Amino acid sequence: MAVYAPGRDASRLAYYGLFALQHRGQESAGIAAWDGRSVNVKKSPGLVSQVFSEADIEGLAGGLAIGHNRYSTTGSSNARNAQPFLIDSRHGPIALAHNGNIVNAGDIRRRLLDRGVGLTSASDTELMIMDLAGRGEDDWVSRIRAAMNSWVGAFSFVTLTPEGIFAARDSWGLRPLAYGVTAEKAFVIASETCALATLGCREIHEIAAGQIVSCDAEGRVSVTGPGEGAAPRKHASCVFEFVYFSRPDSVWNGHSVHEVRRRFGEELARRSPAEADLVIPVPDSSISAAIGYSGASGVPYGEAFVKNRYIGRTFIEPTTALRKRGVSLKFNVLHDSVKGKRIVVIDDSIVRGNTIRPLVALLKNAGAKEVHVRVASPPVRHPCMMGVDMGQRSELVANVMPVADMAKWSGADSLAYLSLESVGRALGGIDDYCAACFSGDYPFDVEMAEAKERFEF
Amino acid sequence: MAVYAPGRDASRLAYYGLFALQHRGQESAGIAAWDGRSVNVKKSPGLVSQVFSEADIEGLAGGLAIGHNRYSTTGSSNARNAQPFLIDSRHGPIALAHNGNIVNAGDIRRRLLDRGVGLTSASDTELMIMDLAGRGEDDWVSRIRAAMNSWVGAFSFVTLTPEGIFAARDSWGLRPLAYGVTAEKAFVIASETCALATLGCREIHEIAAGQIVSCDAEGRVSVTGPGEGAAPRKHASCVFEFVYFSRPDSVWNGHSVHEVRRRFGEELARRSPAEADLVIPVPDSSISAAIGYSGASGVPYGEAFVKNRYIGRTFIEPTTALRKRGVSLKFNVLHDSVKGKRIVVIDDSIVRGNTIRPLVALLKNAGAKEVHVRVASPPVRHPCMMGVDMGQRSELVANVMPVADMAKWSGADSLAYLSLESVGRALGGIDDYCAACFSGDYPFDVEMAEAKERFEF
Amino acid sequence: MAVYAPGRDASRLAYYGLFALQHRGQESAGIAAWDGRSVNVKKSPGLVSQVFSEADIEGLAGGLAIGHNRYSTTGSSNARNAQPFLIDSRHGPIALAHNGNIVNAGDIRRRLLDRGVGLTSASDTELMIMDLAGRGEDDWVSRIRAAMNSWVGAFSFVTLTPEGIFAARDSWGLRPLAYGVTAEKAFVIASETCALATLGCREIHEIAAGQIVSCDAEGRVSVTGPGEGAAPRKHASCVFEFVYFSRPDSVWNGHSVHEVRRRFGEELARRSPAEADLVIPVPDSSISAAIGYSGASGVPYGEAFVKNRYIGRTFIEPTTALRKRGVSLKFNVLHDSVKGKRIVVIDDSIVRGNTIRPLVALLKNAGAKEVHVRVASPPVRHPCMMGVDMGQRSELVANVMPVADMAKWSGADSLAYLSLESVGRALGGIDDYCAACFSGDYPFDVEMAEAKERFEF
Amino acid sequence: MAVYAPGRDASRLAYYGLFALQHRGQESAGIAAWDGRSVNVKKSPGLVSQVFSEADIEGLAGGLAIGHNRYSTTGSSNARNAQPFLIDSRHGPIALAHNGNIVNAGDIRRRLLDRGVGLTSASDTELMIMDLAGRGEDDWVSRIRAAMNSWVGAFSFVTLTPEGIFAARDSWGLRPLAYGVTAEKAFVIASETCALATLGCREIHEIAAGQIVSCDAEGRVSVTGPGEGAAPRKHASCVFEFVYFSRPDSVWNGHSVHEVRRRFGEELARRSPAEADLVIPVPDSSISAAIGYSGASGVPYGEAFVKNRYIGRTFIEPTTALRKRGVSLKFNVLHDSVKGKRIVVIDDSIVRGNTIRPLVALLKNAGAKEVHVRVASPPVRHPCMMGVDMGQRSELVANVMPVADMAKWSGADSLAYLSLESVGRALGGIDDYCAACFSGDYPFDVEMAEAKERFEF
Repeated sequence: MAVYAPGRDASRLAYYGLFALQHRGQESAGIAAWDGRSVNVKKSPGLVSQVFSEADIEGLAGGLAIGHNRYSTTGSSNARNAQPFLIDSRHGPIALAHNGNIVNAGDIRRRLLDRGVGLTSASDTELMIMDLAGRGEDDWVSRIRAAMNSWVGAFSFVTLTPEGIFAARDSWGLRPLAYGVTAEKAFVIASETCALATLGCREIHEIAAGQIVSCDAEGRVSVTGPGEGAAPRKHASCVFEFVYFSRPDSVWNGHSVHEVRRRFGEELARRSPAEADLVIPVPDSSISAAIGYSGASGVPYGEAFVKNRYIGRTFIEPTTALRKRGVSLKFNVLHDSVKGKRIVVIDDSIVRGNTIRPLVALLKNAGAKEVHVRVASPPVRHPCMMGVDMGQRSELVANVMPVADMAKWSGADSLAYLSLESVGRALGGIDDYCAACFSGDYPFDVEMAEAKERFEF
Repeated sequence: MAVYAPGRDASRLAYYGLFALQHRGQESAGIAAWDGRSVNVKKSPGLVSQVFSEADIEGLAGGLAIGHNRYSTTGSSNARNAQPFLIDSRHGPIALAHNGNIVNAGDIRRRLLDRGVGLTSASDTELMIMDLAGRGEDDWVSRIRAAMNSWVGAFSFVTLTPEGIFAARDSWGLRPLAYGVTAEKAFVIASETCALATLGCREIHEIAAGQIVSCDAEGRVSVTGPGEGAAPRKHASCVFEFVYFSRPDSVWNGHSVHEVRRRFGEELARRSPAEADLVIPVPDSSISAAIGYSGASGVPYGEAFVKNRYIGRTFIEPTTALRKRGVSLKFNVLHDSVKGKRIVVIDDSIVRGNTIRPLVALLKNAGAKEVHVRVASPPVRHPCMMGVDMGQRSELVANVMPVADMAKWSGADSLAYLSLESVGRALGGIDDYCAACFSGDYPFDVEMAEAKERFEF
Repeated sequence: MAVYAPGRDASRLAYYGLFALQHRGQESAGIAAWDGRSVNVKKSPGLVSQVFSEADIEGLAGGLAIGHNRYSTTGSSNARNAQPFLIDSRHGPIALAHNGNIVNAGDIRRRLLDRGVGLTSASDTELMIMDLAGRGEDDWVSRIRAAMNSWVGAFSFVTLTPEGIFAARDSWGLRPLAYGVTAEKAFVIASETCALATLGCREIHEIAAGQIVSCDAEGRVSVTGPGEGAAPRKHASCVFEFVYFSRPDSVWNGHSVHEVRRRFGEELARRSPAEADLVIPVPDSSISAAIGYSGASGVPYGEAFVKNRYIGRTFIEPTTALRKRGVSLKFNVLHDSVKGKRIVVIDDSIVRGNTIRPLVALLKNAGAKEVHVRVASPPVRHPCMMGVDMGQRSELVANVMPVADMAKWSGADSLAYLSLESVGRALGGIDDYCAACFSGDYPFDVEMAEAKERFEF
Repeated sequence: MAVYAPGRDASRLAYYGLFALQHRGQESAGIAAWDGRSVNVKKSPGLVSQVFSEADIEGLAGGLAIGHNRYSTTGSSNARNAQPFLIDSRHGPIALAHNGNIVNAGDIRRRLLDRGVGLTSASDTELMIMDLAGRGEDDWVSRIRAAMNSWVGAFSFVTLTPEGIFAARDSWGLRPLAYGVTAEKAFVIASETCALATLGCREIHEIAAGQIVSCDAEGRVSVTGPGEGAAPRKHASCVFEFVYFSRPDSVWNGHSVHEVRRRFGEELARRSPAEADLVIPVPDSSISAAIGYSGASGVPYGEAFVKNRYIGRTFIEPTTALRKRGVSLKFNVLHDSVKGKRIVVIDDSIVRGNTIRPLVALLKNAGAKEVHVRVASPPVRHPCMMGVDMGQRSELVANVMPVADMAKWSGADSLAYLSLESVGRALGGIDDYCAACFSGDYPFDVEMAEAKERFEF
């Protein structure tokens, strides 16, 4: 995210904004700020609450700041990869933070190395900042436009320079990015609108695909008009943001995420009804869809799973032996709510398939008469190359067995997925979206993207 | 909590049990284990996930263990106060962990100091363990019984000695404590039954008021029969465990906590109905009551607040200035769910009154036509002396203004509390409960309890 | 050490004093201070420079403070054993720090446990403070005197109470303790006079065996006169303080340590002369003796070993394989100083015998024509029970072979020890000293002392 | 330093080598190793003993490693500046560590930025590695030679690549660098020969000015012959390495450092004799010169200062008030050695002049009849631009007053410096040395060097 704030408190607003975006990445956090003399940065592995002390925020004084929560797609949770990156360049200091995945990173890397640049990480973000550092155009918008035209993939990014903050979304519009203005005229850019709402922004706009937004050190904002941003491409906004990634209180591509999820639930109820006494969600991301299912079906909404909210990164996983002995930490079941009942359980998606089986078993052991699994998205069969960690193709359970076998596999009495058509209906058309994880229809050449995964530093 | 496990894994089970009890205390965590040769302990400030590494758990080998999550009633978050306490005594090593509050701590302290004991903390737990260390009875059950008869207050505790684990509840039965047995014959004692369920226990029993439960190093369990435990007292189990403290998947005094909360919601709907389009909870502790209210009233259940789950102890609170500017981190609202609607918002309780006003404002700003606050418990007017931190009498908002003024104060169109009679109805009688926070009717002499608060080390 | 300072800076003086005493113990450090309202303590494993921050020292405000560097005789480097200990007692708060070893600790422990006291460590210091806590006498000097009369062993200790600081040495006078006054009238007590000199004390006195020194919160000092302290015993001050333990700039039992070491060197030169070109010390503790040897023999003084000063506790020891390959970190040799020369190398003592052999090899490899080892103390054959870690009897190399074989064992051309008679001559008589490590003539019953070593908590 | 070791233990040898070089830099430490697949690095602020755990060393497996202790000339003790630097380049991964100071860093920086390189630090080392990354020559020796010819200043450096380790000294020969081979055929490069001796090297050679040394992954060593290294320059090896910087057991420019210091002492005794009873050093760097002075003058050698070896970076400096009150931590004096005597005190050099005055005062207060200061180097009047932190010109006390006034200023009865002629005599000629700190005769254009100091990132 990025902030211009009159006065010196940009990093403090960024800190609170990062809290609202913590669900997008828990590996590392960082903030860079321009104090009028130099760019300072603080970043390290951990949650926002662990990375920053009051002294850190005070040390990041200034009217311009950018921040980042890192989400790891590769497992390389290296301190070296924490963002924002900061370099000195012939255009002065630059800090950059990035959400997404550059698909032609290999090409860019070779181009930079051939120019004599040394690279310190395997991060796309370093490639982006080094590419910008070498651009010869006269102003930042031109440099950014030229660089964007050479990049293929998902890249919503923010840049901090002494001349101002700059933000842009790739021309496919793959990942979200939005801006808003607070009552006190702070200008804020964030990956999701929920962070803008959290900071009290009133006017909130999503940045258009290929658009470049700037805000200088005096707070003057400018936005590229039609034809002024990066070269246009066929739109392909990520549909999985609706399914799982975004917070329900965000707006994505003009739609309320909660509302879309609710509609997913309604579609499910219509296409895959079940005779039942209770509809329950797998907390927390399936609550909206479960409410939609309940409303459309008339089956009462209830809760039956209690989720343990204290299980995080440093948790010591139970051994298989303990698991077999019934140690079940993430979810416990409310026996009285379930006993003797026919239950519809709504899950937002099934990716690797690790969660749903033990949950069905918990319900059955608690005395549920019937369990009907309804999945509020289509089967995930293709890995994401644009920044969501879904694992390898062979890890996706929908590639391992036909859907018809999954009810039995899961232990449920029935199991049904939402269809891609239903997704389209809920969204009023799916043409502008990337649904490659469901359809295999990637916006770019897949081979290029998969090749990148093999690169290692 | 306490564990006997055949083999050497008692501390690992305790670790998982503590995760399920983390909501009862986040200040410090600790485990003590008997390895057949010595008692080892690891404890420090922080969450269970922060305190223990795999190496720590391996270092706490043995078949007997006790564990503790500390909840701070006084704000003294001192490493010195972390539990379990461990001492060497003439009866050999003793470790002890305790949940509650000893009301006659001042008397016990003076008695111990006069005996020539030196004390290292202001903790009740140290008083309890030192009192046990000096008891002359022949066996542990007799020592524990004698000590319990000299203690006044809430004390659910577990003790670890080379001879076994021992657990007991005060004769008033103020705080919960239960035991269960897993399929592999591990014997587990925990503050709430949810931890027993998490560990896969099948037979689960709540320990009776005044009862003493033992399990020796070979797993032989014994339980005091009628008249064999501590001297009987009038029962006074904490009703606030139902309102807020316990996890919904626990059983307290024979009742499912979720079920009781649901009934609280039904009672509210009957006694304080509202013409409305939607019933929403304040997440997470009000969900059960909101489901109950929805069921009894026929008003549809929905969610309108998104809670930020990453805000913890090390969070830097926003300044008042930022708060005024609209920075609202803990909750954000789902505008589409609320706009133009008449909303019933269910809160489990109102103590200091810091939460409900900003939530009502969020709903109104999001365009709610009407907001009706329904509180699923009676007005809290009296501080708890038995271990729940409710603040001073003057901090309780229900002492500051009449209930009739609270709708206006909160910004809501109406505001109603559950009555104490309704609580009684939902519980099938309230005589065996302590409802002092609502009624001011304490099970002990209040002056003694308040005097203790002034003690400082 | 202990400090009374007018104003609030007692802990700061203690901090600097502890630096001057760091050579006496590197395991843990701690300071306790009385701020007029409560006793605060900060202690943890590590060097003084690692344990205390400026904020710690500021948090330990007050006019009275005691401090401690812990030296581990047993290897149990537990945070639990860090000093000072602090308890609340019927006489109010007490902090205590101790240097030495209580020989009848087992008896005291049993006595305390029988009184119903619980103990949290295996430390003598806890026994001492708990014993004092239970004493019924009317004032601190009386309580301390009574307790001292029940303790057998080496115990130089300081105590902090709201009424003042108290210090005493055991009646055998085994370990040093001295006091002094600065120009600004701060009153300082320290294990060695070098710390008093470091703090600018002018009048410096060693505390007499059995004497009790007090200084109240207004700086009024009192000292027990003849017959007023603990019951008298045959004096037995530690002679090893001269050999190795004390800093050369301290005064012990009225003698300058440097001066005594110099005389040890002179005695060696007279009794065990060698035809040589150069006298060199094993740095640093043998420098004084080498200067003495050079002066008395006329053989020029030089240096040939360079000691690596950065090797500390956290150093990863080279494997035996690496050692055999010639990796020699602690000492390197100055080839030009040694080549072709006949060298006398002075070592302060030989205990386990790990150092001298590789040093002789270094000299020989560097081309020394002859190497004559001269040890500035008698053969160490008996373990110390009074607080110096010399290892087990079987680890002492002088018990493994006759002195006549040691030249060959060490690789030297000759090897000679100082005789106990020479030690006596250098000190003007040895009757008032404990030389048990040389003579086996302990001031107490050995069996009792050795029994204690077997105790474990 | 750099190590090739048959097997996988290169980093372990580097670790021990860094211990022997710790005196050259205590700010940060780091090691990079090539494991046959990737280059791994571990570096952070702190001493070698603090930075590396056994697990770190095991994680740095491989046959090739380089290591570094950072010495801070500027006070910017930033983690970002820790060495070795590691980048990926078109020539593959490169790690580099450097001792010295590049005088034309500004020019190199501009050249790199113009090429489009982004820089992450203000470090010379990053400039060097980025410059090498962009070189187009076919092999590493050619790239290094070309780069060296564009660099002005002091730069002894080591580089690690999958093809081998490379090391070179600038053509002025300003800073030391040497190599050796152990009995097991490990090949070791280190800043000082003392580290080679410590690791058991037998054949030890100093690398010549401008020479480039290589060792490939199979241990094949090659060394540039005459005319094959960097372009020749007038030799200017640092004379201050003899005065203070090097360890006495090192050989620098063919001379034993201890031996040279001894000769400095002899020269001093001849040119600036004093009637005295005792010659004492300021420990530890003046011991060799004091021994030389004693030998040449016949005045007996002794020790009078005890240095506190525990005062390091994290030490809380005493306030001026405490200092005035006589708190004197770094040195204490042996009163008996000094009282009534005429003392010659040898100091290796006087730079800012903070040390000698309090030392003279200590001697006088201890009763010295006369104190004669003899400085074993000429007056330091010019800041070093080649990597030794001597402070600003105005901080050098020899610029503040004439030498004739310094005896009085210091409190001594006489004070004399070694002359530059004497230095030359002790070294057998001074033409090949840089003595700019004494003479102001820099090997390069001073303005360029001073300009660099103003650069900041």
